[in-house]
Amino acid sequence: MLKVGIIGVGTVGASVAKILQENADIISARSGKQIIPLIGVVRDISKDRGIDLQLSTNVDDVLENEEIDVVIELMGGVDEAFKVVKKALANGKAVVTANKALLAYHRYELQDIASLSPIGFEASVAGGIPIIKALREGLSANHINSIKGIMNGTCNFILTKMMNEKVEFKTVLEEAQNLGYAEADPTFDVGGFDAAHKLLILASIAYGIDAKPEDILIEGIEEINSEDIYFAKEFGYSIKHLTIAKKKSDDTVELRAHPALIPNSHMIAKVDGVMNGISVVGDRVGETMYYGPGAGGDATASAVIADLIDIARDGQNSPMLGFKKTLEGSGLSLLSPNEIYTKYYIRMKVVDKIGVLAGIANILGNYNISINSFLQKPDTKMKDYATLLFSTHECKEENVQAAMKELEKAEFSVEKPVMIRIED
Amino acid sequence: MLKVGIIGVGTVGASVAKILQENADIISARSGKQIIPLIGVVRDISKDRGIDLQLSTNVDDVLENEEIDVVIELMGGVDEAFKVVKKALANGKAVVTANKALLAYHRYELQDIASLSPIGFEASVAGGIPIIKALREGLSANHINSIKGIMNGTCNFILTKMMNEKVEFKTVLEEAQNLGYAEADPTFDVGGFDAAHKLLILASIAYGIDAKPEDILIEGIEEINSEDIYFAKEFGYSIKHLTIAKKKSDDTVELRAHPALIPNSHMIAKVDGVMNGISVVGDRVGETMYYGPGAGGDATASAVIADLIDIARDGQNSPMLGFKKTLEGSGLSLLSPNEIYTKYYIRMKVVDKIGVLAGIANILGNYNISINSFLQKPDTKMKDYATLLFSTHECKEENVQAAMKELEKAEFSVEKPVMIRIED
Repeated sequence: MLKVGIIGVGTVGASVAKILQENADIISARSGKQIIPLIGVVRDISKDRGIDLQLSTNVDDVLENEEIDVVIELMGGVDEAFKVVKKALANGKAVVTANKALLAYHRYELQDIASLSPIGFEASVAGGIPIIKALREGLSANHINSIKGIMNGTCNFILTKMMNEKVEFKTVLEEAQNLGYAEADPTFDVGGFDAAHKLLILASIAYGIDAKPEDILIEGIEEINSEDIYFAKEFGYSIKHLTIAKKKSDDTVELRAHPALIPNSHMIAKVDGVMNGISVVGDRVGETMYYGPGAGGDATASAVIADLIDIARDGQNSPMLGFKKTLEGSGLSLLSPNEIYTKYYIRMKVVDKIGVLAGIANILGNYNISINSFLQKPDTKMKDYATLLFSTHECKEENVQAAMKELEKAEFSVEKPVMIRIED
Repeated sequence: MLKVGIIGVGTVGASVAKILQENADIISARSGKQIIPLIGVVRDISKDRGIDLQLSTNVDDVLENEEIDVVIELMGGVDEAFKVVKKALANGKAVVTANKALLAYHRYELQDIASLSPIGFEASVAGGIPIIKALREGLSANHINSIKGIMNGTCNFILTKMMNEKVEFKTVLEEAQNLGYAEADPTFDVGGFDAAHKLLILASIAYGIDAKPEDILIEGIEEINSEDIYFAKEFGYSIKHLTIAKKKSDDTVELRAHPALIPNSHMIAKVDGVMNGISVVGDRVGETMYYGPGAGGDATASAVIADLIDIARDGQNSPMLGFKKTLEGSGLSLLSPNEIYTKYYIRMKVVDKIGVLAGIANILGNYNISINSFLQKPDTKMKDYATLLFSTHECKEENVQAAMKELEKAEFSVEKPVMIRIED
C-alpha cells in the first residue's frame, strides 16, 4: 500500500484524488499496490471540492505524517513550493510535482537532494503526454538534435482561433478567459513564460543543461494580429507559439520560446486548439512526435498518477505486459469478429442497366444494411459497365460479410465487390 | 558494464552494434554503465556487415557465454526464436527482442518465464516510437478506451502514394520493393499480418487480453484501387491500414487490423509515407498520439538500446533529469540569444509614399538582412498608410533586434514594427 498526501487541492489535486479512487482497480493491477489518497492540504477548508478526502490547512499534517509515503506538490509558485518539497524529501518521502516554475528554477538542486527518494514530474510538461518518459527513457540511445514544441494550450487556442476565424488577439483572449482556458492575469501563459519553463525542463533531460528563464529568449503572442495571419496564410504557414531546443555543431544549445511561422506541411503545424504537440529529433531515431492534452485536471492527474505508479513499483520490474492476465482489471474478453459494428464503404462493378440499384438495395435491406452516401463513377474503359461506390450506416460485420457474398453472386455483378470499413 | 550478444545481425542488428559504439558517450551517461556489444550470431560469417563486432554462427556462443548479460534476439520467426529466448532466460540472461511474431504467439508464456529476468520489446511495435513505455507506464492511470494505429510503414507508403499520385496498388508495390520498403514476398506487410501482431502486443498491455492472430479480423490492402481513392477524396477521407483495439461497454474488447476510411480532420489521417502513428484514448487523459518512424535499422535500434539502458539502470532510479550536469555527454553550453540565426517575418505600418521601401531596405542592408518575400496589404482604414509584410533570409538575431529599433525610429514608421521568427 502506498499512502499519499496532496498539497494543493485545486482542479488537478481533486482529479488525482478522484481518479485514485475511481480507477483503483486498474491502478492496483498495474502497480501491484493500492494507492490511497490520505489527506489534502488546502487554504480554504470550507470549500466543497466534490471529493471524498480528509482536508487540512497545515502542510505539516502531510510533511510530518509518518503514514504518508508520497507527497504530491500541486500548490504552485516557486519559493514556498521549494521549501515544501525539500522538507518532504528530507523526511524520506517521495515527491510528485506538476510545478514547472519550481523546476525551471530549482531542478538541479532538487536532483542533488533527491538522489535517494524519487521525484516524479511527468505532469510538469505537456500535461497528459508522457514526454518526460519518452525523452529520458524511450529515446535514451540518441543524441537529441532538436525539440520543437507547442506546449501552452492557452496560446495555441488563441492562435488557432485567430487563424481560423479572423478575430483579433484581445477578442479571443476574452473568449479563452470565459472558457477557463486563460487566467484572469494571462501574462504567464500568453507571455510565453509557462512554455519556457517547460522547455527548460526538457532541455535538461535532452542536454543536461542548467539554464534559467532569464538566460533564454522568451516572447509572447500579444502583438500578433490579423495581418500576420494574412501573411502566414499567403505563404503556407501556421503561426504557433513554439519552444525550440537545438544542438548546434559547435556543442552550444539554442533555447527559445516565441511565436513562430511553421510550414503547414509539418505535423506540428496541425496541432490545433488547446492541444499540445512536441516534435523530438534524435540522431538515430529521426523525428518522433507526441500529441495530446497539455492541461486540464484529469489529463494532468493522469501524469501525476503515472509517476505514483512508477514509485509504487519501486524499482521492481513491472510485469512484462503491464499486468498479468489473471489480475483484477483485466477480466475482459475478446469480441467475436462477427459482432463488430461499424460503417462500411462498398465498391461494385455492375452491368449498367435499369434495376441494378434496386437489386443491390434489396440484398442490403435483407441484411439490415442501409446506404448512407452513393457515387456512380462512369467506367470509361468498358461502356456497358458501371462502378458503384457507396457507404453504409453502422451495421453488423456478420451481415455485411453475408451480403458481400450475395452481391458477388448476383447476376448484375461483374467483379467481386470490395468492402473497406469506415472509422469516424 | 553490460555485455550483450546479438543474435541476427541484419540491418537492425548492425545498427545496434554501431550505435552502441558511436553513441557510447550519451549511452553511458544516461545508463550509468558502459554497454558493450560482445558477439554477433549470423548464418553467413563471410558477409561484410560494415561493423566492428566478433561474429559466430553458433547461438550457444551467446546463450552459453557466461560473460553475456543480455541477449538481443533479432533473428525473426516464431519457433526457433522462442527456443532461443527461453534458453537465454533459463541461463539467467535478460532479453531484448524486436520480434513481433514471436510475441504475437508466445508473449504470455514469456511473461511467465521472465518473472525474474526482464524482457524488453519496445522495438517490436512501431520501431522508434516508445509506444510500449507510453502505454504501460505513461498512461497507467487510465482505463484504455481505444487504440487506433497506423503501424505498418509498407502499407502506409503504398496507400499514401495511391492517394497522392493516382497510381494503382501493383505499381506502387513494385516501387516500394525497389526502395526497400517492401519485401520480395510482401504478404506479411500488405496482408495486414505485421500490423495485427503489433496490435496484439499493445492489446495485452492495454487490456491484459491473450488473443492470437487467428482470433481477430485481419485484412490487407491488396484490393484497394483508384476508385476507392476517388470515393475517399470525394467524401473527405484518407485510406489507411488501421489497427483498432476498442473496449466496449459490455467489457468485450474489439481487435481488428484492416484498411479503413478515416476522416481527414483526424490527426492520424495526416500520418503519411513510411511513418507510423498511434492514437490512444484513455478514460482520464483523453486522446494522446505518438508519431515517428516505424521501421528502419537505426530507428528500430534506438528502441532496442532504450531497453538495454533500462536494463543497465537495473531498477535503480535514473538521475531525475536523465543525467547529471557534470556527467560525460552533457558538456554543452547555452548559446547566447544574440547568436541565434533564423529567418524572420516583419510587419511595419508606414507612411504610403515613394522611397519608403528603399529606406527600409537600406536599414536592413546595413545589418546584413536580406528580404526573401514581400507583401503590401492596402490599409483600408487609413488611406495614407500602408502595411508592409516581409520575410527575410536567414540572419542573426542581434542584427534583427538592432534593425527593428532603427525601423521603429525611422520617420516613415507609424507604429512599432513587429517581428515573428520563421521555423522551416
